[in-house]
Amino acid sequence: MSENVIGMDVLFNPGSVAVIGASEKPEKLGSHVMNSLIKGGFKGEIIPVNPYSDTTMGLKTYSSISDYGKQIDMVIVAVPAKLLVEVFRECADSGVKGVVLITAGFKEIEDSSGIELHNTIGEIADKAGICVIGPNTFGMINFHASLNASFTPEFSRVKKGTIALVSQSGGISHLFGFMAMRTDVGFSKIIGLGNRLNIDFAEVVEYLMDNDPDTKVLMLYMEGIDNPGRLMEIFKKHRGKKPVIINKTGSSEKGDQASKSHTGSMAGRHEIYMGAFRQAGILAIDDTENLLDSAKALAGCPELEGNGVAILSGQAGPGMAACDVCEANGLKIVDFQNHTQGRINQNLPPLALRSNPVDMGPAWYDAVASREIIKAVMDDENVNGILILIMFASANVGVVNGISHLLMNWKQKKPLVTCIYAPPGIWDREMEHLEISGALVNFPSPERAARAMASLWRYKNAIER
Amino acid sequence: MSENVIGMDVLFNPGSVAVIGASEKPEKLGSHVMNSLIKGGFKGEIIPVNPYSDTTMGLKTYSSISDYGKQIDMVIVAVPAKLLVEVFRECADSGVKGVVLITAGFKEIEDSSGIELHNTIGEIADKAGICVIGPNTFGMINFHASLNASFTPEFSRVKKGTIALVSQSGGISHLFGFMAMRTDVGFSKIIGLGNRLNIDFAEVVEYLMDNDPDTKVLMLYMEGIDNPGRLMEIFKKHRGKKPVIINKTGSSEKGDQASKSHTGSMAGRHEIYMGAFRQAGILAIDDTENLLDSAKALAGCPELEGNGVAILSGQAGPGMAACDVCEANGLKIVDFQNHTQGRINQNLPPLALRSNPVDMGPAWYDAVASREIIKAVMDDENVNGILILIMFASANVGVVNGISHLLMNWKQKKPLVTCIYAPPGIWDREMEHLEISGALVNFPSPERAARAMASLWRYKNAIER
Repeated sequence: MSENVIGMDVLFNPGSVAVIGASEKPEKLGSHVMNSLIKGGFKGEIIPVNPYSDTTMGLKTYSSISDYGKQIDMVIVAVPAKLLVEVFRECADSGVKGVVLITAGFKEIEDSSGIELHNTIGEIADKAGICVIGPNTFGMINFHASLNASFTPEFSRVKKGTIALVSQSGGISHLFGFMAMRTDVGFSKIIGLGNRLNIDFAEVVEYLMDNDPDTKVLMLYMEGIDNPGRLMEIFKKHRGKKPVIINKTGSSEKGDQASKSHTGSMAGRHEIYMGAFRQAGILAIDDTENLLDSAKALAGCPELEGNGVAILSGQAGPGMAACDVCEANGLKIVDFQNHTQGRINQNLPPLALRSNPVDMGPAWYDAVASREIIKAVMDDENVNGILILIMFASANVGVVNGISHLLMNWKQKKPLVTCIYAPPGIWDREMEHLEISGALVNFPSPERAARAMASLWRYKNAIER
Repeated sequence: MSENVIGMDVLFNPGSVAVIGASEKPEKLGSHVMNSLIKGGFKGEIIPVNPYSDTTMGLKTYSSISDYGKQIDMVIVAVPAKLLVEVFRECADSGVKGVVLITAGFKEIEDSSGIELHNTIGEIADKAGICVIGPNTFGMINFHASLNASFTPEFSRVKKGTIALVSQSGGISHLFGFMAMRTDVGFSKIIGLGNRLNIDFAEVVEYLMDNDPDTKVLMLYMEGIDNPGRLMEIFKKHRGKKPVIINKTGSSEKGDQASKSHTGSMAGRHEIYMGAFRQAGILAIDDTENLLDSAKALAGCPELEGNGVAILSGQAGPGMAACDVCEANGLKIVDFQNHTQGRINQNLPPLALRSNPVDMGPAWYDAVASREIIKAVMDDENVNGILILIMFASANVGVVNGISHLLMNWKQKKPLVTCIYAPPGIWDREMEHLEISGALVNFPSPERAARAMASLWRYKNAIER
């Protein structure tokens, strides 16, 4: 393992974490960082550092890193910029392997002293082999180590999962975290790159590809980077190993201008980025909700082997809405095999919507018939993926109950994406059970389910091109 | 008022409602209808009709409509098709003005007896001046009369508001209802047209335009209709009176085929519909979530008088994401007036993102500075609409508190659309208060906020073209 990889291993899985600027005062970021570590359930040692306190949240507090005396694995820094050179020298002297540098206000400021400071601490870190997340980051979270190294304690409410988010924006990282809390998407890591002292997309992507078994899908948010060539090489090297999906802002004139100013790096020419992503086999998605939906589908579904899908709905309308999105995105609403169509016809009255898309509505108070229709379609060799779209409430919860065992036992032999949707409080726990056990991947609208299925297909095309 | 209008007034605001097929057995739709009426808090008289029961849910039950003896305003029918001719004859004899006909299984079935039945009861209804919602509908809800005339009691959980949904799909109506429950959107009416015996889009739209002060925005879901020309005339006649937005499925080959079969009416040629909508001054939106978001913005915002918008964000990333969507949809991220820019510069360090879009991040722990920036932009004459995008949690709830009074007092002098977003449980009640009081219109992603703002502009163009 390279020094970098060892450093990142320690950074994400430290035995001990010091908080420089630890505090109990809620107006200080250091207090929120302490809350994140403690309430997030970090199992290693937490070492508050603050020369003006003896204890912080019940923990013995040290005046400096060297005052602690023993080896410290990782350090979270939340003190003003002017103290950073001293802090980094101490980190180097004490053998610290990783730093999360929350402090903001240097490279992004229109003032040359900021760039000098950036370079000075960069040199210290590089020489000492310290991996630095930040500066100007909210932090990072490794859910599998219960390590919330951020100033947002609420990130610990996000479920443990297999999606890693690597993001150049704290705001977007928080957005995804809050979305995940509300939709039960699970993350392995959330990493706020900030102004990237020595850890950039390239380093993190390589680490997640080669050294992080907890991560199955990489979800990236990018504004603009200095050295896209190096990152693209890493993408190409790992093409198809784990899905990579990316949301890059800057398609608009003002968005691109803002991107250039904000990141202090080359943005510009959205089309060039898009072309590079295509060549590198990664999938660009221009909407945050769709990015998270797509990550959820890629993490939860097997590969979509062809573009033939079946649409089974409890009511005709949602099925039609899904048809429109599927066809517009390269999926095909395939004809069923003859024996499949025969089995469906046995279980539905002579309605018009017995061919794909199938409106199961007329069988909707008959769980056996609904089950038979779904089973027939699961067996159909023309069908590569299945969409099931059902709106229900207390009046028809019986049928949803009646098909849940079938879905559970089928175990996603082909991608099964659903919009099974009810008022809050109805069937919530059953749906959570089906989702957690991996039986299906559920979305809150027919179009979002269809777009997620389409992303499976677009991803397959992206890596095979 | 025409007979039709009088009939629809009674239909939506009845003093007495009979339920034909009332039951206590949960496997019967009539039991769910009874629950809807009772639990929905209907204040008028509820008259269960069922020849095999003496009481239903504690209410005296009659063997038939005529058995009740007195005048009945409206009747909800949930009995098999074979009983319908008799039921309609009794309704006609008893002076019933409105029927919600839930019973399914005739015109949509591939069998000529269904069409005959449809025509027979249609003649009885027309001759007696009875307005019929359905057949093959889940029902309708008039939230301002606490009248839930549907088989889904949970619809009563949707908040009272000013958006009317008129829908050709029960599934899509339920979808919107469930979305509304989760996002606090309020409805005036939800009307499931079903197979449209004598009440079609045209009748309902005309009624909502002319005779329903509770409704400010019309939101339509359409698969295909027999006589689009008549509806388009009504749209044109009322152009600009109340916003009309529509989601029409069938843009795909399979979606369109399904639409033709399912509605038993002419669908076909999506582009022709789109052209007709454009000419009639109504806005077509091809996604259910975006349709509801747009309705929410149209109901909650004043008119967007020009396409110049300001984007103010708590973090740069969400602002850039919004820029991309705004520019792609015809909005302009305008330059501020000189004195506005001066006021902003006084309140932000010399960051790059002080011009539009403004990253308020560096003022993010300073409520006074954030307020000054927002005030300056509110006063700017170049700015027609404002987007505020803030992700926050416990660490920075103070600033959001600090700007809420300003938003409250400003009272949407120009459209103010936001994505102010936090983990569940943080600032929920404050946000609900701001939304209910009409101070802002909030969405769960920067792109959705931007698309909603864009819909205000697209609607203005639609009516002025």
